[in-house]
This record gives sequence, C-alpha cells and structure tokens, in this order.
Amino acid sequence: MTEMTRVSTDIDYDKNGKQHGHLSVPNSRDNSGWGTLLMPITVIKNGEGPTLLLSGGNHGDEYEGPVALMKLIRALDPSEIKGKIIVIPGLNYPAFLAGKRLSPIDGKNMNRIFPGKYDGTISEVIAHYVYHYVLPQIDACYDLHSGGYSMFMVPSAMCHYLEDKDLMARHIEALKAFRAPMMLIAEELDVAGMLDTAVEEMGKVFIGTELGGGAILTPESVKVAETGIRNVLKHFGMMEGEPVTPTWRGQTEAKLYEIPDLGYFCQAKADGLYEPFYEIGDWVEEGAPVGQIHFPQSPEHDAMVVAPKKGGRIWCRRAPGMVEKGDAVAVLAIESEK
Amino acid sequence: MTEMTRVSTDIDYDKNGKQHGHLSVPNSRDNSGWGTLLMPITVIKNGEGPTLLLSGGNHGDEYEGPVALMKLIRALDPSEIKGKIIVIPGLNYPAFLAGKRLSPIDGKNMNRIFPGKYDGTISEVIAHYVYHYVLPQIDACYDLHSGGYSMFMVPSAMCHYLEDKDLMARHIEALKAFRAPMMLIAEELDVAGMLDTAVEEMGKVFIGTELGGGAILTPESVKVAETGIRNVLKHFGMMEGEPVTPTWRGQTEAKLYEIPDLGYFCQAKADGLYEPFYEIGDWVEEGAPVGQIHFPQSPEHDAMVVAPKKGGRIWCRRAPGMVEKGDAVAVLAIESEK
Amino acid sequence: MTEMTRVSTDIDYDKNGKQHGHLSVPNSRDNSGWGTLLMPITVIKNGEGPTLLLSGGNHGDEYEGPVALMKLIRALDPSEIKGKIIVIPGLNYPAFLAGKRLSPIDGKNMNRIFPGKYDGTISEVIAHYVYHYVLPQIDACYDLHSGGYSMFMVPSAMCHYLEDKDLMARHIEALKAFRAPMMLIAEELDVAGMLDTAVEEMGKVFIGTELGGGAILTPESVKVAETGIRNVLKHFGMMEGEPVTPTWRGQTEAKLYEIPDLGYFCQAKADGLYEPFYEIGDWVEEGAPVGQIHFPQSPEHDAMVVAPKKGGRIWCRRAPGMVEKGDAVAVLAIESEK
Amino acid sequence: MTEMTRVSTDIDYDKNGKQHGHLSVPNSRDNSGWGTLLMPITVIKNGEGPTLLLSGGNHGDEYEGPVALMKLIRALDPSEIKGKIIVIPGLNYPAFLAGKRLSPIDGKNMNRIFPGKYDGTISEVIAHYVYHYVLPQIDACYDLHSGGYSMFMVPSAMCHYLEDKDLMARHIEALKAFRAPMMLIAEELDVAGMLDTAVEEMGKVFIGTELGGGAILTPESVKVAETGIRNVLKHFGMMEGEPVTPTWRGQTEAKLYEIPDLGYFCQAKADGLYEPFYEIGDWVEEGAPVGQIHFPQSPEHDAMVVAPKKGGRIWCRRAPGMVEKGDAVAVLAIESEK
Amino acid sequence: MTEMTRVSTDIDYDKNGKQHGHLSVPNSRDNSGWGTLLMPITVIKNGEGPTLLLSGGNHGDEYEGPVALMKLIRALDPSEIKGKIIVIPGLNYPAFLAGKRLSPIDGKNMNRIFPGKYDGTISEVIAHYVYHYVLPQIDACYDLHSGGYSMFMVPSAMCHYLEDKDLMARHIEALKAFRAPMMLIAEELDVAGMLDTAVEEMGKVFIGTELGGGAILTPESVKVAETGIRNVLKHFGMMEGEPVTPTWRGQTEAKLYEIPDLGYFCQAKADGLYEPFYEIGDWVEEGAPVGQIHFPQSPEHDAMVVAPKKGGRIWCRRAPGMVEKGDAVAVLAIESEK
Amino acid sequence: MTEMTRVSTDIDYDKNGKQHGHLSVPNSRDNSGWGTLLMPITVIKNGEGPTLLLSGGNHGDEYEGPVALMKLIRALDPSEIKGKIIVIPGLNYPAFLAGKRLSPIDGKNMNRIFPGKYDGTISEVIAHYVYHYVLPQIDACYDLHSGGYSMFMVPSAMCHYLEDKDLMARHIEALKAFRAPMMLIAEELDVAGMLDTAVEEMGKVFIGTELGGGAILTPESVKVAETGIRNVLKHFGMMEGEPVTPTWRGQTEAKLYEIPDLGYFCQAKADGLYEPFYEIGDWVEEGAPVGQIHFPQSPEHDAMVVAPKKGGRIWCRRAPGMVEKGDAVAVLAIESEK
Repeated sequence: MTEMTRVSTDIDYDKNGKQHGHLSVPNSRDNSGWGTLLMPITVIKNGEGPTLLLSGGNHGDEYEGPVALMKLIRALDPSEIKGKIIVIPGLNYPAFLAGKRLSPIDGKNMNRIFPGKYDGTISEVIAHYVYHYVLPQIDACYDLHSGGYSMFMVPSAMCHYLEDKDLMARHIEALKAFRAPMMLIAEELDVAGMLDTAVEEMGKVFIGTELGGGAILTPESVKVAETGIRNVLKHFGMMEGEPVTPTWRGQTEAKLYEIPDLGYFCQAKADGLYEPFYEIGDWVEEGAPVGQIHFPQSPEHDAMVVAPKKGGRIWCRRAPGMVEKGDAVAVLAIESEK
Repeated sequence: MTEMTRVSTDIDYDKNGKQHGHLSVPNSRDNSGWGTLLMPITVIKNGEGPTLLLSGGNHGDEYEGPVALMKLIRALDPSEIKGKIIVIPGLNYPAFLAGKRLSPIDGKNMNRIFPGKYDGTISEVIAHYVYHYVLPQIDACYDLHSGGYSMFMVPSAMCHYLEDKDLMARHIEALKAFRAPMMLIAEELDVAGMLDTAVEEMGKVFIGTELGGGAILTPESVKVAETGIRNVLKHFGMMEGEPVTPTWRGQTEAKLYEIPDLGYFCQAKADGLYEPFYEIGDWVEEGAPVGQIHFPQSPEHDAMVVAPKKGGRIWCRRAPGMVEKGDAVAVLAIESEK
Repeated sequence: MTEMTRVSTDIDYDKNGKQHGHLSVPNSRDNSGWGTLLMPITVIKNGEGPTLLLSGGNHGDEYEGPVALMKLIRALDPSEIKGKIIVIPGLNYPAFLAGKRLSPIDGKNMNRIFPGKYDGTISEVIAHYVYHYVLPQIDACYDLHSGGYSMFMVPSAMCHYLEDKDLMARHIEALKAFRAPMMLIAEELDVAGMLDTAVEEMGKVFIGTELGGGAILTPESVKVAETGIRNVLKHFGMMEGEPVTPTWRGQTEAKLYEIPDLGYFCQAKADGLYEPFYEIGDWVEEGAPVGQIHFPQSPEHDAMVVAPKKGGRIWCRRAPGMVEKGDAVAVLAIESEK
Repeated sequence: MTEMTRVSTDIDYDKNGKQHGHLSVPNSRDNSGWGTLLMPITVIKNGEGPTLLLSGGNHGDEYEGPVALMKLIRALDPSEIKGKIIVIPGLNYPAFLAGKRLSPIDGKNMNRIFPGKYDGTISEVIAHYVYHYVLPQIDACYDLHSGGYSMFMVPSAMCHYLEDKDLMARHIEALKAFRAPMMLIAEELDVAGMLDTAVEEMGKVFIGTELGGGAILTPESVKVAETGIRNVLKHFGMMEGEPVTPTWRGQTEAKLYEIPDLGYFCQAKADGLYEPFYEIGDWVEEGAPVGQIHFPQSPEHDAMVVAPKKGGRIWCRRAPGMVEKGDAVAVLAIESEK
Repeated sequence: MTEMTRVSTDIDYDKNGKQHGHLSVPNSRDNSGWGTLLMPITVIKNGEGPTLLLSGGNHGDEYEGPVALMKLIRALDPSEIKGKIIVIPGLNYPAFLAGKRLSPIDGKNMNRIFPGKYDGTISEVIAHYVYHYVLPQIDACYDLHSGGYSMFMVPSAMCHYLEDKDLMARHIEALKAFRAPMMLIAEELDVAGMLDTAVEEMGKVFIGTELGGGAILTPESVKVAETGIRNVLKHFGMMEGEPVTPTWRGQTEAKLYEIPDLGYFCQAKADGLYEPFYEIGDWVEEGAPVGQIHFPQSPEHDAMVVAPKKGGRIWCRRAPGMVEKGDAVAVLAIESEK
Repeated sequence: MTEMTRVSTDIDYDKNGKQHGHLSVPNSRDNSGWGTLLMPITVIKNGEGPTLLLSGGNHGDEYEGPVALMKLIRALDPSEIKGKIIVIPGLNYPAFLAGKRLSPIDGKNMNRIFPGKYDGTISEVIAHYVYHYVLPQIDACYDLHSGGYSMFMVPSAMCHYLEDKDLMARHIEALKAFRAPMMLIAEELDVAGMLDTAVEEMGKVFIGTELGGGAILTPESVKVAETGIRNVLKHFGMMEGEPVTPTWRGQTEAKLYEIPDLGYFCQAKADGLYEPFYEIGDWVEEGAPVGQIHFPQSPEHDAMVVAPKKGGRIWCRRAPGMVEKGDAVAVLAIESEK
C-alpha cells in the first residue's frame, strides 16, 4: 500500500463500527481552482470475518444498486454482521450525480479504465485508488449494475467464464447466492479495463448484477437488489438467516443461464425507431424476429426486421425507441446445466 | 384559407387515394442557408366521410403514436376507409428526429404555442400552418402522446372537462371509442397554447392519448395504439368492423377515470434519486406514501417521503430515477361514473 | 387581478403571520415534461400598514440582496413589523440557482422584459405574474442589485430622475432612507422593460441598490444590505427604532451623488486585459486616465489608455480583467446638492 | 423619426465629410452586464445628391461585400462623390464577427426579421433601428450577399418581380448598373421579414447581390464587388466615369437571367455526401442529373441521383459535401429578354 | 498478429472476391451503453499480387477520396484486378459522419495518433487496429486527403523526403504514378503520429494526396481522384491498361514540385478577414504579397499585408475568410528536377 | 537538449538584446487544419549573469503576473540588467486568451502535467517544451499566480517545505526577496505534475506567488507584482538598487508565514451561497466560524456554519458566492519564526 495516490479519506478501514466518510479527490475547475470531489463511502465493520466491497454507480444512470446500498448503510447495525463491508454507492461519482453513464468531467467509462492512473483524469484517479487501496482489502466484490438509460434487463446477477476451475466454482456459488430472477454466465466482449477483470485477476470473487434499466427503478427490481445483498452476506457467513428468493413479474424462482456465443446478440443495422416484438424474459424461437426499425424521415418505407441467429430467452432489450446503427437491441440467453 | 403561411406542400388534400408527401418548412441554418425541413405527411382519402387528423410526435420522445401511424399508412388501402385521414407522424419534426420532447432548434414545446405565428420560430411556423390549413378541414383530432422520457403512464386516452355539454358528450363518446386500458377526463393545469384547446375552441373533437412512456415502446402499448386508432375509425363510421379491446398487463377491460382536483398530483420537494413504492396501475390508499427521495451527496441522510393527499389508482409515475424539486412523480385517478 | 397567469402559489397574501411558500411556474423540460419551477417567496404580515416588495436575484449573480433577505425572513418575527413585506430572494430564479446574470433557460435579462407575457418564455411568465399579481399590492419596491460578475460598485442605493415632482421627492426620501455609502440619482440609458419603470409608472416608489459586485460578497457589503433594509422598514413606519449608517472601508457617512450625463461613463475601445488605475470610491481628476488595456496576443504593443471626459468619484469599475470592445470599465459620479 | 430606439450613434447623418463611427446596441451578457455592441458604420457625404445604403454582413459568412466596403470607406475621399453613402459592412454584426450566417447571440437570420422590434432580441433591435432611422434617409439600398458557407454562386446581382411597373423598371436599371457576370430577376420563396421587402415597400430601390460563396473569397469575386459598387455610384450620378464590366472565369459580359419557377430548384432528398456533376455557370440540359448523393454509412449502396425538372445555367450549387434532406443543391436560371 | 485489439470484423482478409463488411469498434455512450461503431470496410481480392490500402476520411471533411473510393468499390469487379485492395472510405469514421476534421467523440486528429493504443480513446483504438492488423498486410498505402474546410489545394499527390534512397526512389515512382496536376515532395513540419510515418517506417510505400478543399467537391477534383487510383493500380501491375492524365482548369500535364524549406509557408499574423490576391496554381514573384487581413472590428484601419519570403506557385491557400493568428494562409512550391 | 519537441521558436536564447518572439505550437482545429498557436515569449539578455524564468498565466484567469510582465518587457532596456530573463506572460496560452483557469482546448490544468509529453495534448506539448528547453537554462523561476476566479488572496509569495536544507535556505532567501505582504511556506496537497516540483527537483529555485484573485486586478496588487519582480532581479544581482516594500491596504511590512497542517483549511460541506464573515488578512480566533452557507432552494432553512479547526490569519477566501460541496472557502496561516 505504498503506491502513491492523489486521493485521501477520513475513513479508518480498520476501525470497528459504522463510519460514513468521503474519498477526497482533487477536482480543479474553472470555477473552483481548489475544488475537491467528496465521494461518499461507508465502512461497517464488526470484528473478524470476510471483507466485501459493495459498489453501485459504476455507471451513473443505474439506480437499483445505489438505492439498495443507501438503504443498507442507514439500516444496518454493525452488530448484525461479522467482518467488514465497504460500500461505495456512487463509484463514478460525477456520473452518478449527473445521472449519466459516463463521467461528465472526462467522458470516461469507469468500467474500462482499471487499474487507473495516479496522474490521470479524475475517473482514472478514482479507479487507481480503488485498485490500490480498496481491492487489496477484500475477499469479494459485488458491483451492482443495471441496464442504465439504454437497456432493460431481467434482474440478474452474472459472472464470467474463468480459466481457473477453483475460482470458477467459487464464482458460481457466489453468483447463485444472490438469487436473482436470472443468474448468468457469459463471455465479455470487451474486457479491457473492467473492474471485473481487475478483481478476478487478484484471484478474488467478482459478481456483477444487471438489476433493471432504462435509467429507472421499479419496486420489484429494488427488492431484488436489497434481498440479493443480504443473501450474499448470509452466503459469506457475515449475517445470520436463510436466503430469500424475490418475486419478479410473478416468477418466484432463481435460475442459471448462459450466453454461449455471439449468435445471441442482436444489433441495429440502421438508424431509426426500434419497435420490439417481445418483452424481457420472453422466449424467442430460433429465426423469429425480435423487432423492427422504422424510418422517421421516410415513414412510407418498410421497416427493417431484426432477428437473432439463435433462439433463447430475452435477457435484455434496448430501452429507448431511437437507435443508431450498431446499437445493441436484444441479447438472449439459454438455461444452464451448471 | 387565405391566411399567409411560410409552409408549402406537395399534398393535394382533395384528391382520392393515398399520398405520401411533405410539409416544406424554411429552415435556414449556418450550414444550409437555404435549408428546408421536409416533414412527412400522408393523406388517405376515399370519397365522402369524416376527416380525421391523426398526429404523433407532438413531443419528440413519445413513440407509440408515431410507430402505430407509420404502420397504418403503409398498411391501409384507401378502399378500406370512407372519408379522409390526415396523418402527421412527427408533428414537432425536429424534436421527433432528435428523440427529445422539445424542439432542438428553438427549444419550444409544440403543445404550448398554438395557434402559432406566421413569422415566428420554426415550431411556431409549423403550428401556424396546422392551425390555419389542417384544422379547418377536420372533424376530429386524435393526438397520440405517450409519457416521454420523464413519465410512465398506464396506456390511456383522455379528454378535458368542457363547458359545452353537447361537445362534452361527443368527446366522451370519442374517448370511449379508443378502448384504452384507462380513459380519463381531467382538468389541464396549464392550457396556454395547447393543440387540444385550439381544436376544442373550433367546436371539434380532440382526444389525446398517453400510451406508455420512458421514451420507450412495449409490444402491448404499441398494440393499444394500433387497436385504438382502428376502433376510432370504426366509431366515426370510416371503417367497417367491431371495436376491439386490447389487453394490458392482464387487464382486458377499458374503464373510465377522472382526476377531480390537484390533490391527486405528487411533486418532488427536493432534488435527489426517486424510489417509487408502486407500479403504474396500482391502487394507493389515502395517506400512503408513493415513494421517497434519496440524497446522493449524503447517502447517510434519511430519505424524504412523498405522499399524495388523496388515494387512487396510479395513472402515471416518474420514469427516470433522478428528480429535481418541482418534478411530477405521480398522478392518481379514480373511477368515473360518466 | 383577473389577468390570466400560468403561475400559481400556495401563499395567501392577505393572511397575517409568516408564510414561506412558492411561486409554481410550469417548466416543461426534455427530462421533466411536467416539471415545475418552485420559486421561493415569503410573506410576513402583521395587520395594517404599508406593503413592500423586497426582491433580490433580479440578476442571478448579485448576492448581497439574496443573503440579506434570506437572513431577514428567518430572523424577523411578524410582531416586529406593521404592514406587509413580500420577499422574493431570487426573482430570476433559474439565473439565481445558476449564479448567472441571465436566465440559463431562455437567456433573458429579467430587468428588460417587464411587464412580461402570459404565454412568453419562463422569465417573461415570471415577470408577467409579478407585474399583475404582486406590484398592484405594494407601496414601494426595493430591488436589491449588486454589480454581478462584471462590475465592482461602491455599495449604493439609487433612483432615476422622474418628471413627476411629487413622486421624485418621495423617491429621494426613500433613497436616503437606505443610508448606503453612496446614494445616487441617475439617468438610465436603456429603460425598456425594467422593473424600475414598471413600478414608477404605477406611481409607486422604486429604489434599486448596487451593493457590491464581482459575483462575490464581503462582510461589509452584506452589512450595508441588512442595515439598509431595516432602515427602510423604519422609514416607512413599519418597524420601530432609529436608522443606522453602516461603515464601509472606513467611511461612516451616507452621501447623495448624481451622474448628470454620459461623460461620466468609460467604455473599452478594444478587446484585451484591463488594468485599473483606481479603486472604487477614489476621486479622479478631469482628463486623468482611469486604466489601460493590454493586448495578450501582442504583449510588446503599448497599452491603450482609457480616460473619461469628466472628473468624479469612481462609483463602479469593471471587475474581471478580460474586456471586450464596448464593455463598461468605469462610471463616475459627483456629489449632489439635492 | 420619433420612433423609440435602444440604439444610439456618434454619427451625424447630415454632416459633410467622412465619419467612421458606431451604432451602440445594448448587449447585456453574463460576463458584461453593461456591455454594448459597437457596430461600425461609416457615412461619407458631399453636398446634395442621392443617398445610398451599402450593406454587407447581413449574413455573417458572406465576405465579398464586407471586404469591398471596408476597402471603399478607406479609399474614398468625400470630394469624389456627390450625395451621401451610408456603409454598414457588418449588418448582423455578431454573426459577422463569428463568421456564421445566423447571429450567435439570438440565432436570428437578420434577413427574416424586418422591420425589427424596439424591445426584441439584439438582431431585432438592430433591424428596428435600420428600418426606422436609416431606410427613411435613402433612395436605394445595395445589400451585398454571397453564397455563404452553404452555396457557391456565379457572382450576380438580383432583384425581385414587383407589381409596380415603374418601380420594376427602376429596379432593372439599377440591377443592370452593377454589371455582375449574372444579373437575375427572381421570385423569392420566403419573403417574410426580408430587408428587400422592407425597402421595396417604401417604393425605393433594393438590389441584392450573390457574389461568391463557400464562406470564402476569390480575387475575381472581390473585384466584381468593388467594380459593381463604383458602377452603381456612377449610375446614380454620384460619381464620374464610365462603368466597367469585370471578368469572371474568362467571361467578359454581364447578362440578364430569370428563374421563372420552382422547377429550376433542386433539393437533396436524403442525408449524405453530395457529388456535383457540374460547376457553377455550366449549362445543364433538361432532364440531366446535376449530381448524386452517396451514403457514408452504407458505401456499397447505389448513389441517389438529383435532377432538376428544367434545363438551364447553374446559377449556384451546394458548396460543402455533406447534405441533409431538404438542402438546396442547385438552382438554375435561363437568359432573359428583359 | 497476436497483438490484442478491441476491434473485430466480419471480413476475411484472405478470401477471394468482394466483401463489404465492417470494423466493429466498442463505443459506449450515455445513450447506448453497448453501442458499437460499425465502420465500413471493403476488401476486393483476386489471387496473387500486391496488397494496397486505399483510405479516405483520415480527416472527416475531405471528400474527393471517400467519393472516389465509394464509386470504386461499387464498380470494381474482382476479376478486373490481381492482388488485393483494402478500402476504408472513412478512416476517422465519427469525424467523417460529422463532416469535421477531428473526431467529435474524442477530439483527436487521426493523423497524429499512430500507432494508436489498445486501451485508448476511440480514435486511438481504430489507429491501433489499422497499425497492427492492416498495415502488416500491405505493400503500399494511398491515403486520400483533400484540403478540408480550411485549405484549398491544387489537386496533388505527395510524399516525404526519406533517408533510405531505395525507398525514396520507390516513393517517387509511386508518386508520379498518380498523375495529379501537382506532385510534391515535401518535409513534414509535425510528423508525430502520422499514418505516413507509420507506413514509411515499415519500409512500405506511403503516398498522400491533397485533392481539393474547402470541405467541398468539384467534378474535376473527383475525376483526379478516380483517375489517380486506377493509374496506381496499373502502376502496381494490379490492373491492365495505360495510365491517364486528368485535366484540371485547362492544365493537362502532371508535374513534380518541391517545397524546399519554411520560406514557402505564409501564416496570418493577426485575427481578421483574409483577402487572397491569387488563386491556387498562380505564380507569385519573390517578395510579392499573397493577400491581406482586414479588421472587422475596425474597418477604418489599414489591412495587414501577408507576403512569403520566397516566390513560387501557390500550392494551397486558406479557404474560409475568417482567420486567426497563426493560421496557414498560403503555401508555395517550385518545380522539381527529380 | 536533443529531446524531440513539436514546438519551434524564432527566439535565439543566446543572443544579447531584447527579442519579442513566439513559441509555435501545432494546433490543428476543425476550422484550421494547419493552425498554429503563436505563444508570445520575450527574452532580454545582457552578457553574463543568472538566468530567470518569469512566467504568468499558468492558470489563465490570474492577471497580476501577466500585466506586470507585459509592462516589464516593454519598459526594460537590456542595459539595465546583467544576465538573462525569459518571460512567458501566458504559459497556458489558450486558457489565458480565454480568461479561464484550465485550457479550453484540452481541459488541462497546466500546473498538474509537468514534465509534459512530446505527443500529448496541446497543454502537455507546451509543458514538455518548457521542461526540456527552458528549465535547463535557468537558475530560478518565479511563476506569478493569483487566486483566479475562485479565490481572493492576500498578495503573497510562497515556497514549499523541501528536504534539501541548502536548497530550502536558498528558497527562503529568494522568497523573502519578493517582499510581498505575506510570504508563505506551505505543504502542497496535490503535487503531481506541478511546475514547482519540476524546478525544485532540478535543484533550482522555484517561487510562486498568489497576488490577488477573483479574476480581477487591483492597482495595489499590480504594484506588488511589479515591485516584487524588480526586487527579485536585485536579489539575484541582475539589477542595481535597493529593494522596495509595497503597501497593501495600509500594511507596509512584508512578513513570513507558515501553514503547518490541514487544520488551517476550510471546505464547504454543502452546495449553496457562501457568506464570509471575514476579509482576507483578518485574524480568526480558534473555533470561530469563518462564514456560512445559505440554501437558495430553501431560504427558510438555517445556514450551515463553516469553522476551521485552528485559528490564524486569513490568507485567502472563496471569491464567488456560489459554492459546491468540497470547494475551498478559506485557508489560514500563522506567523513564522524562520
């Protein structure tokens, strides 16, 4: 921990009890030369036990995680747990305050810049601190994403295919522990700089979630988040009690799925207005179109149909109507035997 | 019709058959001095009968209407109808192309600037043409709104309380004809410059819809739009066949509601992250909170509860998580006897 | 008061006691279709007596007035006064929240758009309400300006030359009552749409202030504001006690000045970096330069000297270093015999 | 001339000799509350004779006029003329400084807002002054346009078809006097608020020019501007000497053309990259395509051909490669017998 | 080719025939978290032979190259060539779609960032792919530039002075093969990160072009581009037939020129409005001014003359009228004996 | 000095006499592909002696330094000095021209990017040149800062605590030589990339100043700058004469202060409108509040008091009224015995 950092904090990570503090990140602006970003962080510790990082707001327009975490840190008494939880409700804090996926200060996607840079942009300085000062402390990280403005998702938890079999096994256990309506194992397309990879490469457990989307909240998806976090604390032996499976649109079971390859992804092949034919969670037969693109400049032209190569259950779909060529409009998944 | 206008068109409103054309609106820009906005318009006419204006995109981020109308103008053969339908899928066309509520050119809300201005901004020039050249032709207007980026709505049709009893009666019939999951009679808070008022004051029928929201589309809400339009054509004797009631989230009936007064509206009283406790369509008891606002800069602070003064069914709620003080977060309605 | 307005309020202007409420102004935005601007307003009333409008934030970057008014409405008990004070700390509320002179929503200068418009932009809608619903209630208005970002001013109160002799006399009394370090009578260069003119034309008293500037606050200038308001309440018989003359940079007297003509104004005649030779309050001899403009692109070029045609005391000067051709850099005033 | 104005000037319009002065237009900005736009204006007068307004920069990205006028006011000695010329090189002065067609302050097209407004936006305030204080003084106006960023034009002078035969005859004489490579009579499509119309309706002569384009200058087009202005002064008997016909791309004759109807205009019918098949001044046979639109998102798709309905000489064509649907890409003209 | 990349493609570089495909570049945006840039690429291959990269849109506002390449890939049958051509019509694809020199996403100049970065900004990710996956395949690269918005150029091809004599000789041959109106050898002032340098350092041939400018197209300059590319294919033995020399402004010969040193460059020494005295291709005597700068804020001031130190033929000049201090306004060249 | 650079200059650093020249920095823009930033630099040399770098505009909104330096380079005759001074009045030149702290081109804080990058953004390219071409020449650097837009400072000079005792001693002498009203030794909080550190690590003397603030100038603070620079030249034996102590707000003595730890800094803990209770230079007792934050959205709420942990003299305070959470509002200092 002798790596230099430009971030300071009023938190003592070794202290028992509940501390609400800040990460202080230098943020010189035209209208505040000596401005500082005061990012909220809460640490709740009670004696020995595992250490978990619970983070939200990695993308600033994904809200189930931050809401569940803000409610947790207010409600949880240190005596209820064993070990330590480190909670950062808004990891890309400027993006979180702005309600945008990317940082409005440097335009960065927080989840593509790990391990960060000591003297980089503000997002990179935050990532650098988390990488060098927080990750070494932890046993596992649950990074609570949702679909954000652009995607609607079946509330889900997910992990990646990993080469290390033991680590993979621990991930699948930690994944199932969340008890989301869908639990997914998938290949990531673009892994450069993900927090996920940073944690996995340290040999630690990383579980992500996708709890809803459209930059909105629903009562059910918030409930999935809140229940999931407590299930996880129970899984790691940090909290007492039986795990609970939340209900979502009438579904009361948590199942394991996989996305075996790219044939389950659908992209828009033109700019236009996307009309989906299915809701998330629906089953689509192989070869069936999932939606079509209309052309607002030429309404008289036929719509362009979008069809995945493989059939499956719709894990997520494009939320806003307007699409650009290359945008993801649907991803499908199939049930797993693992 | 001798009112001057800056808009021209290649449409002949008196011709039988189907014409896909444009309204040409001068749009001088820094990068196109002699640029013209070519707004799509379709007229389908078959002999005598009523004339209907079917419009979408009055706000540019409301999509069920435009999608249903684009499908209609491609599918409908003139021989299927009697009379004339004038279809403008994107009324605030620059806003529609941009996917924004307000015009990106002049910042105007199209639905607050009627009767427009001959020499005004581009939105006002469009409104002026519609007022002076389209509205005089019609018997009724169905203006297809949705909740847009900021609100989720139970798919609904609505009209205003009108003083003229006969006109009111005709409105209620025209409203019920749409067969949306909710059909609402309400007082408008801020009527200055609405298309609604412009049509009503001509003694003609104006029905608005709110078909979904969040700047998204769902298969069910698109179906409500498509079914509703055809129901209306049947109601006006322009098309043959029986009206159909669409299904929405398992509900198979179309019911009439009212919003009697301001006690059914809920506003955010602080900036923050809004967590709803109910979904649209849920029933809320009098005095029960509908949601709460969390404070991202101070997650340790208690959330601020939001509660309407009256109980009712949640007609609509705030879609995106982030709210500013003064934003509408929920509107409730109660069943009507009318 | 039957003029239509788009503004509503929860304030009862006729009720005794202290009410903190809002003016609700419709503010439809891309991210909040049914958004409302909730502008703070406080009314403190105790029985019969004059009615005063105390306003700040007419320009959003002028702070002594808003601070003094916010402190006043918290501190003042209704029993301390006779009559009624209506306090609007942020008249151009969007500009005030943004800390900018002009409205960030419509770009308007609130002090050039009176009497406003029923169906205008948001600033015009606010002005229209104030003109039709607030001004008719009042006997006098003190509109608390400062120099804002661009000017530093000797803390001062001011009124215009008026043709009606009786009204002029009442203005000079109301002006002197404020007891600012400078009290000024001046001709306004560009009177179109000022709140000042609106009030004066109703035959009521309008006193403006210029309490400091540079978009900043100093302890002394805040004190001038707070003392001045209470002096005014005493002047109108609404509060008991003797008036107090505040100290400013060692000056303990409040004196009357005039700006007889345009020869006392100095403009920059080129773009560049302005270096003032005097501080506000200094005396400048006739013909002496008040400053000079340096050229950052060509530092080797001689600076361009700026000199007023007349001598006088420097009432105000340009605050920020960078100037554009046509910017005011200094205004002088001379002692008055009135 | 008792119309109120917010504009003042240091020019004495009745004084003999050469005066370089300013129009002072109030321009309150966030960074200069008391800022003033100091628009250059030059008046050169020598005894009795006609009065001409020579204006440039009506659109801010059209440069031949301003350059020719700036050279003229430096070079011309009052003794060389009889009568008075009023020269405003940058009529939409903020647009001219920014090098943009429209005002960067209020977004206005100066040539669509006459007669302006006393209390309007800054462009309207300028137009209002010109209409009420300058136009009443003049006998004729030559408003020197070029194609600006978006169009390339054969250097040309032009006037409109007018109903008053005598006025039309005087216009044709004044048009021919300019001796541009093309001299055009045309119908304007969108006349609302043009300076042209304002002058014509006063029964005075208005000649516009289109001297080049692409926001650039060529030595030849500047020469056309300079020669044309002096030819005009000779035509009105204000200057001695014989008129001169400038050379343009080898053409040494000035000819009269007409644009009889809309069949000579070509618009882009899709967004894309426009490739012209002809240069300005080329002759196009009836039915021949003038260019085609390529699709950068889909280079493999065939280009869309653009063809006018009528044949003629290409008066102007789109300059920049990228076009949006509705942009003018070419206008043709045919020789006139008038 | 085991270098990691974030770019994928549906193109098989080893397959015979014509493939229109895409480079898929991850492009996470606020409104499309899983958005992808789908950059068009075409590969045409027929058996053995050299491999050429033909690229356009390195700067997004230079159009002759992209137009010629889009026409080529539609027209060319694989059987017409031997070997392989890789065609990327829009290398800085976001800049190309926007019609801007620099990327609107990251502000980067594509031609100063080679060899790119695996985890860099989007322009750097594209450059990194081209460097590691495309350049290793090729024998030569023709990168088709034009002057863009800011410069007009005599249609020309160019290469750099290289130390390796053999490579230099091969470059001169490849240069002459293009048969542009001017063919230039020049020293580059600022070589950091150029595609040129990247190719040259691999010992491969790099020829750039400057085919026109002003962000526009002319029929003649498009012809130079189309002819030149086919001439080049013949030069490399990939296509049959005799090379053709295109005509430009009456010139029918292709000549070699050099820019020996910095004395042939002219910069603006002040902000203002630039008036050129010569057209591109004109000969300027030593010491003669090439243009002058007028001052729009002070039209009465004399213009500032711009003169190069050396005489020569004007290879290019500033296109738009407005200039800032430091902008290039002209570059001259002299005939070469090489 | 064989490090590559993208910057060139017309200055000969070894030549005696006074040279006004430029640093030429490539600055390719959308509207000037071959644009160059021509940054002013002046070198005045007279035979042997020390070399000093005098820089201003490291942050673009700090003006005392640039004004004093522009006056110095015009006034100073080479014969008045021994040795060499290198003067760069606007180090972050784009920021200086814009009057902003950070570069408007790349958003960089010039004082956090040393030693710069050869192929970096424009600010990094400038820093890289200064680091590799200017710093090696010098004996000492006086970098003239002020508070800029956000802070008001007692005019002061300052240096850091350094581990090397000899270097520390030389710094304290060089610090005292400036004779500012306050002379400070302080710990820097965030040293990454400072020019200060770059110079110190070369074993050379670095003195910074903070001469005023609020983006403004006062006659007294300009005098402190001008006097200080000449005092320094005398200190280094480069100029003859006795040092002079300037007067500031009646204070005629220059004293040494220290900021021993973070207890002397005050931050805003909420967004709002900051009201200071003290002026700069005032003494604050331990525990006393220095100001309070008002809440413009809720004026009825009590203000939040801000109090430092330690007492001291107010070295600087927040200038503009509006603050964000984390902004510095005051820094205190205590007298030093050193």
